[in-house]
Parts: sequence; structure tokens; C-alpha cells
Amino acid sequence: MAVYTHVDPDDLAALVARYEMGSVLSCKGIAEGVENSNFLLETTGGRFILTLYEKRVREGDLPFFVDLLDHLAASGSPVPAMIRDRSGSAVQQISGRAACIIQFLPGISLTHPTPAQCEAAGVALGAMHRALAGYDGARANSMGHRHWREVANATGDLDAVRPGLQATVDEELGFLDAHWPTDLPAHVIHADLFPDNVLMLGDRVTGLIDFYFAASDFRAYDLVITHAAWTFSADGSTCDPALAQALMRGYAREIALTDGEIAALPTLARGASLRFLLTRAHDWVHTPADALVTRKDPSPFLARLLRYRADDAARLFSPA
Amino acid sequence: MAVYTHVDPDDLAALVARYEMGSVLSCKGIAEGVENSNFLLETTGGRFILTLYEKRVREGDLPFFVDLLDHLAASGSPVPAMIRDRSGSAVQQISGRAACIIQFLPGISLTHPTPAQCEAAGVALGAMHRALAGYDGARANSMGHRHWREVANATGDLDAVRPGLQATVDEELGFLDAHWPTDLPAHVIHADLFPDNVLMLGDRVTGLIDFYFAASDFRAYDLVITHAAWTFSADGSTCDPALAQALMRGYAREIALTDGEIAALPTLARGASLRFLLTRAHDWVHTPADALVTRKDPSPFLARLLRYRADDAARLFSPA
Repeated sequence: MAVYTHVDPDDLAALVARYEMGSVLSCKGIAEGVENSNFLLETTGGRFILTLYEKRVREGDLPFFVDLLDHLAASGSPVPAMIRDRSGSAVQQISGRAACIIQFLPGISLTHPTPAQCEAAGVALGAMHRALAGYDGARANSMGHRHWREVANATGDLDAVRPGLQATVDEELGFLDAHWPTDLPAHVIHADLFPDNVLMLGDRVTGLIDFYFAASDFRAYDLVITHAAWTFSADGSTCDPALAQALMRGYAREIALTDGEIAALPTLARGASLRFLLTRAHDWVHTPADALVTRKDPSPFLARLLRYRADDAARLFSPA
Repeated sequence: MAVYTHVDPDDLAALVARYEMGSVLSCKGIAEGVENSNFLLETTGGRFILTLYEKRVREGDLPFFVDLLDHLAASGSPVPAMIRDRSGSAVQQISGRAACIIQFLPGISLTHPTPAQCEAAGVALGAMHRALAGYDGARANSMGHRHWREVANATGDLDAVRPGLQATVDEELGFLDAHWPTDLPAHVIHADLFPDNVLMLGDRVTGLIDFYFAASDFRAYDLVITHAAWTFSADGSTCDPALAQALMRGYAREIALTDGEIAALPTLARGASLRFLLTRAHDWVHTPADALVTRKDPSPFLARLLRYRADDAARLFSPA
């Protein structure tokens, strides 16, 4: 949850006047997004999301996100377009922040997805990957495999987060350095497709949102992130086979994984678990106790890592 | 800002199904309200606010608020009605909390009101008081004059908040005990009509919201709370005469204050300043540093108190 920056009503009126969207009727800060300030904005022209970018999103990356969402929207993926003003610009300034006005999409984020909903998420992810295979944009993945050791070092003593964690992480970093694949199909991926970032109505996906971690990486890595995010119990100890099979079945309706990808899935999933384990541990240690951000417990991703390490991990990725 | 309680989508669907409002299209936590969890809920039947009541609002008080808003809406005040379900009930249960679904009103809260906007707020307050004069509901004001000494005592050492504050508060409590009026026109008042709680479009008031401090007290006390909230600089040191005159002029278009009320305004305004000074000091001391609530600095209300104590304070309430 995150609303950090106050928007003055006069500044808002001036911003909205740059667009073909009439005048402001309402603007309410919403508890959504990755450390940005988000507002649900209603004008006489419709409903929109106003996002002010805080520290984690670099202003220089915004043109990439605008172009990516344009491409995906044009390809039929249910993503929110960034609205352009009368001069064609999607990136604005307000309250000292870069800001975009973004299409509003209906739908709500699930807490406990059903198999049918996991299957729909898998289809949506696969369809997005088909659209992204032909996309020529690129962005280095600053949260990718090559950076995990830095994140671990920057966190400090991992045993302070949880006794024994440092040894587990060191061992895993060694394994992943030795076994991380090098030649799998790659393109821009979402890289953070948790249930929070998928809007649904019933069993229908109505929105894929929050692309601010999108970057160039293996498509199968995007799939295992989604697998880790959608198919486990809250404590991360148990993968529900019905949810996992449904997700994989849905994805397979759009994408035929290569043999190399299938073989790499458990390793990639260990990497995905380590990525969220490390960034959560880092934020746990470095977020001031009085910050407005709710710190996320890293432990459920340690539990996933251990599950994906088990001898039978490959069967968690079977579509049937 | 406050969204505390998670609402499960299935529970939300079950709640909405009790009403004549179609099915859920969207539900986003919003950063609004007095320590309640608020959601902007969209259904196929329209837009609504879903409020889950956290600790500060007693469930037993909810029928009073429902009735009060019904009365005001029927009297033409721009207040959000609490929607009743098919069985006629406005108070529900969800996620272990009492909850209401409330009419959505357009408008935004001002940061820097103009004189024309202060005048409109004064008119809206006066019109609401006309409607409340004939209202037979009642609720003891747990934040009223008789309770300030308790709040001061419960805060602990006020000098820890600001050196010298304890002596100022003790002196003021003594003055107010000796001079607090006893026989002014009284009825249920809003008691918290800060700019946050007034929705406006341009110079027009479109909503008076957040009645959870509403209680029986002097109507002139409601007026001075509004005066303290709308007409001062952010640090509380300066009352802008153009804003203050506009507020009083607007109010006077609806309500002719009695001579007794006019004479009591500076004393009531000292009380209003002390009330917010004390409750903010209390929360400053007792809010855990890691709470999701932003603690409000009590100092600007000490500054207002000092301004209202000055010999020329009566002229701050002149409508021209």
C-alpha cells in the first residue's frame, strides 16, 4: 500500500487540462502499486489511474514502459494503456514527480485463486508472451540472476533475518551460478505477475497491471515467478497440485515450452524464489520501522525455495 | 490514510449480493477516513464507498450515524447516504468488522481554499445546521469540553511533546472550565469539518463526509472548529482575514448567530484548538512509530490556541 505524495487540486486541474478528458470530478489516493503514489481519478471523460513515480521507478525508464504497454494493448493483451495528452506525451510532471495518467481497468485481485482462475492466469501470461516474442524493446533486468549476489551482500547478515539463512543463500547462489541456463527463449517479461497484479472478474482476466519490473529475461522465468506466486499456500510450504497443473495447462494453450525450458523449470523456480527471498530480506532489514510500506516477510519464499529444491520438483510443473 | 483490513473477493461478492446493486466490477482500498478501512467499490449498479469500521468507531454507534445521514440526505444536505440491503439493513459484517456501503459523491478535498470556497463551506455548514436543528437524534460528545482533562491526563507528560506545553494546557483547561458557555443553541453537529471532509468541485460543495465524530454540542462550536480548520496558515500562526470573513459571511446566510453565541466564539475557538491540540498530542505519544497512520503534529493547534487567546480575537469572527 502506498500513497506518498500529495497532489494539489489546482495542479491536478492543470494536469488534466492537458488531456482530452474533460474536467476533474474526483481523485482518491488508492492503496496499490509498487511504491508509487496512485490515485483513482474520475473526470467528465471517464475513469483513470494517476500514478506518481516515487524512488523505485526511474524516470528514464518511463518511455520504455509507455512503449511496452502500447505494444501489448495493440496486441490485444488486457493491459492499461498510458494516456497521451494533446501533444502526444504520456509522461508528465506533478508535485515534483514524474507522472502518467493510465487507463482504468475493471476487475479485482484475487486472494485465493481457484484452479479455473489459475488456468486463466496461465492463458493470459502465455498470450502476453506471444505478443512479447515479437516486441523489439529491451530493458536490462536489474532484479535478474546476475544481481542476486549484490542484493544478498547489500542486505548484510542474513542470519539476522533468520538463523541459518546466510548459509542457505550462499549455497543456493553457488548452485544457481553453476546451473543457470543460458540459451532459453527470452524477451521482455512481466517478472512480477503476482495475483495483486492480475485483475479478474470471475474466471476472466480483465487486466494485467504494474509492469514496473518488466525487463528482458527468459520467458520460462516469468512462468516460474507466476507459478511461485499463484500455486502455494500462504506460508510457502505447500504447492497445490490442482492450482499448479491448471496454471501450466493454461500457459500450454498459448506457448509450447521447449525441452530445454522444461528441463530448466525447477532451477529457474529456485532462482525466482531466491529473488523474492532476497529482495524481501533486503527490504525487511532496510525499511525504517516507521515507513508507510508494509514489509513483507521473506520466509514464505525460503519455504518455496526448499520445495523447488526437492527431488520431485519437476512434477510441480506438469500440466496434467 | 488508512486501509487496514483485507477484504476477500468472495466475501465481497457475498456482501454485494445482499444489495440491489448488481455484481462487483472493481474494489480498491482508498487512503481516506478516520482510521477506518475504506474501499472505492464499483458494481454493475454504480459506484459506492465500502467502509469497514476499525477500533475508533463503536459498532453500537452505527445506527445513530445511519439515521443521521438519512435525516440530512432527506433535508437536502449533500451527505452520502448509507445504502440499505434488500432486508432494509445498512450495517453489515465483513472480514470480522462492522461495515457499511455508502453512496459515492463526486468532488475533491481542497488543500488551499479560496475565499469563495470558504464562503461555500460556511453556507453548507449553516444549511446543515438548519437541517440538524430539527433532528431529534442525540449522541454524547466523547471529544467534548468535559473530556479534555481526561485526554490531557491520558497523554502523560505534555512537556515531552513540547517544552512548556503542560503549563499552557493546565492554564487553558482552567480558563475553559471557568468560561465555557452553558446555554447556547445545541443539536447534533459534525464536529470535524476540516477541508478533508468537504468535497468540492470548483466553488461548489458536493459532499460533506466522515460524520464519525458527530455528536450533540453547541452549533457555534461546530462553526469555530470549521473556522480553525479552514482559515489558518499551515503552521497555525496566522488567520487569513479574507478566508475567515468569507466563512462567517457564508454561514450567516443560513444562520443568524445569537448575541450569546457571538460573545462566546473566541472562548469556543480556544476550546476547539485545545481539543485538536490534545487529541493530536495524545496520538503523537501513543501511536506506535511503525503504525500505518501518519501522526499529525499538534503544534499548529497550539499556534491557533494562542491566536484565539489574543485580545483582538473577536474580530477574527466578523463576517465583514
